[in-house]
Amino acid sequence: MSTTGKVIRCRAAIVWKPGGSFSIEEVEVAPPKAKEVRIKMVATALCGTEMKILKDKNLQHQHYPIIMGHEGAGIVESVGEGVSTVKAGDKVITLFLPQCGECTSCLNPADNFCRKFKHEETHLMSDGTSRFTCKGKPVYHFGNTSTFSEYTVISEISVAKTDAAAPLEKVFLVSCGFSTGYGGAINTAKVTPGSTCAVFGLGGVGLSVIMGCKAAGATRIIAVDINKDKFEKAKEVGATECINPQDYEKPIQEVLFDLTGDGVDFSFEVIGNPETVAAALASCHESHGVCVIIGLLVGVQLNISGHLFFSGRSLKGSVYGGWKGRDGASKLISDYMAKKINLDALITHTLNLDKINEAVELMKTGKCVRCVLLL
Amino acid sequence: MSTTGKVIRCRAAIVWKPGGSFSIEEVEVAPPKAKEVRIKMVATALCGTEMKILKDKNLQHQHYPIIMGHEGAGIVESVGEGVSTVKAGDKVITLFLPQCGECTSCLNPADNFCRKFKHEETHLMSDGTSRFTCKGKPVYHFGNTSTFSEYTVISEISVAKTDAAAPLEKVFLVSCGFSTGYGGAINTAKVTPGSTCAVFGLGGVGLSVIMGCKAAGATRIIAVDINKDKFEKAKEVGATECINPQDYEKPIQEVLFDLTGDGVDFSFEVIGNPETVAAALASCHESHGVCVIIGLLVGVQLNISGHLFFSGRSLKGSVYGGWKGRDGASKLISDYMAKKINLDALITHTLNLDKINEAVELMKTGKCVRCVLLL
Repeated sequence: MSTTGKVIRCRAAIVWKPGGSFSIEEVEVAPPKAKEVRIKMVATALCGTEMKILKDKNLQHQHYPIIMGHEGAGIVESVGEGVSTVKAGDKVITLFLPQCGECTSCLNPADNFCRKFKHEETHLMSDGTSRFTCKGKPVYHFGNTSTFSEYTVISEISVAKTDAAAPLEKVFLVSCGFSTGYGGAINTAKVTPGSTCAVFGLGGVGLSVIMGCKAAGATRIIAVDINKDKFEKAKEVGATECINPQDYEKPIQEVLFDLTGDGVDFSFEVIGNPETVAAALASCHESHGVCVIIGLLVGVQLNISGHLFFSGRSLKGSVYGGWKGRDGASKLISDYMAKKINLDALITHTLNLDKINEAVELMKTGKCVRCVLLL
Repeated sequence: MSTTGKVIRCRAAIVWKPGGSFSIEEVEVAPPKAKEVRIKMVATALCGTEMKILKDKNLQHQHYPIIMGHEGAGIVESVGEGVSTVKAGDKVITLFLPQCGECTSCLNPADNFCRKFKHEETHLMSDGTSRFTCKGKPVYHFGNTSTFSEYTVISEISVAKTDAAAPLEKVFLVSCGFSTGYGGAINTAKVTPGSTCAVFGLGGVGLSVIMGCKAAGATRIIAVDINKDKFEKAKEVGATECINPQDYEKPIQEVLFDLTGDGVDFSFEVIGNPETVAAALASCHESHGVCVIIGLLVGVQLNISGHLFFSGRSLKGSVYGGWKGRDGASKLISDYMAKKINLDALITHTLNLDKINEAVELMKTGKCVRCVLLL
């Protein structure tokens, strides 16, 4: 039975107000309009961004009620007019970062930030309306994706087709967390063989940075976190040392200079804390050191000693690990199928979507890297 | 008559106290010790660094009396024990940035910040003593060089040998200003053909950045300064447009977005002002934009919106334009002799060293790019 063109009623996790928890509700999902795709979601997860939004007032915008979630995978249920790159039945990954293929950024090999990504417009479809309704009220989209729903509607340019044999409950991780961290090391920092790296923050993205550093041939990868429960997993994926700043009386940048002599070649801030950014930059080699900011910094000012730049340090931003949205996701899934990358290590828990508030609690402990939410 | 091994009495410009002006004095210059070179200076100039030190309390350290000056060229008068790379009679350029050739930075092709450069030790020779005396008092060195003296003593690793035919009163500019700006564009930013650049600050270094952008094939070079008297020279060396922030009511970064659509590909801060650094970073493309800090930032904090890094902007430091000291200077002098680079445009005035306080006033007006001081 085809559902094409009809409204679908299904379950979704809605947040009704800033700071609220998730509420499982029945929602109506309108059919896809032109250049849109409706997807039956299979797997999703809470990423650090949702965790931040749930607790950080700076990020608690006014778009409520909302269906969050951006890391996910599913199967195309139907497509709107003019969609040519995917069809019903295709397995796809959801992408917060589109790839229109036509803009100056998409056409620039050194760029990945598609001009179609507009911060202020990720809460509605491109025509300015929502495809979700609940109890008669429109519900906002999130991050061009809204994966915490059994069905969602996404622009064609924000989905990446996957290998038909790909296990969606694993490869959905290239949708954001894995790609962001792994690419941050490989593409943005361009970690070099034999180098020394420091990774500040050992959530799923931080662990993926470690994997990227290892894949690039770094010989020393120092993992930094104030939660020592995260050290075992960090070592499992490639960290050669793990340190807790709370174990030292001196600033962590001085500890890293003590450990390395001249500082690290590459440092990564994967928390989104301005003080940690300053420490990560100060930790790296005063001349050729490169510090990559991967953690989300919204509504905060960086306060950094100008002198840190005197002798040549670099501070770089990175989004989606420098991968172009659709091309990067497809490439990384091929790499997973070819056993070149390890996504399984990042999946520590699995629950059904209706247990999403339990997943929030698991993420807070730091023992959970990614809790797959099945739909 | 050889002066080797003897103290030389000559004239030098001394600053006796913080904030003081230059005073021409007779000084004694001791012979070079091991691995040191004594040079009869031929040409020098005030660079932006000296201008800053003369007026900026943050930079007015406690090493007085002092013989400043780091941009210069001369002829080797005598060499100390163990000096093998230059000999009496060689024409040389003075380098604030040494190149020992043996440290991890010198051996790293991606690095130029020789480990022998120590901020706190540039006021004395490596044995912790001075080679200068005036009125019975030791006088501090400056920047490993001290070029405002008819004779100076410098470490062998801080001089670069030049082509015997090179006109020293021209090529001394590769000692600092030209190389710093030109290399900042070519080596640090790696300006690409067809790109758009913005250069904030149109002193000698800023003009050299413009020349580097042009040489790298930038098609649009926007020069920014609050002194419109500098625009003519900026256009002469390659700027395609010149703008004065004071002519606009909106912030300069918004003006640059209006002019370019998506911001500039490369921006350069060549002033050393933390607010200008923030504006230069904000002026560049939100994803692939690269902002290079060339201006000296000492004792100041940068206050930058973290969100500027979200989508991939980079902020890079640069010292001596990314050139290795001795190698870079020699290569650039060869390029000058082969007419590949234009140093002449930067020389607007010529005076004798005893007119150095007049040179200070000329530099303040902005009409003087470099005033060559002949010795």
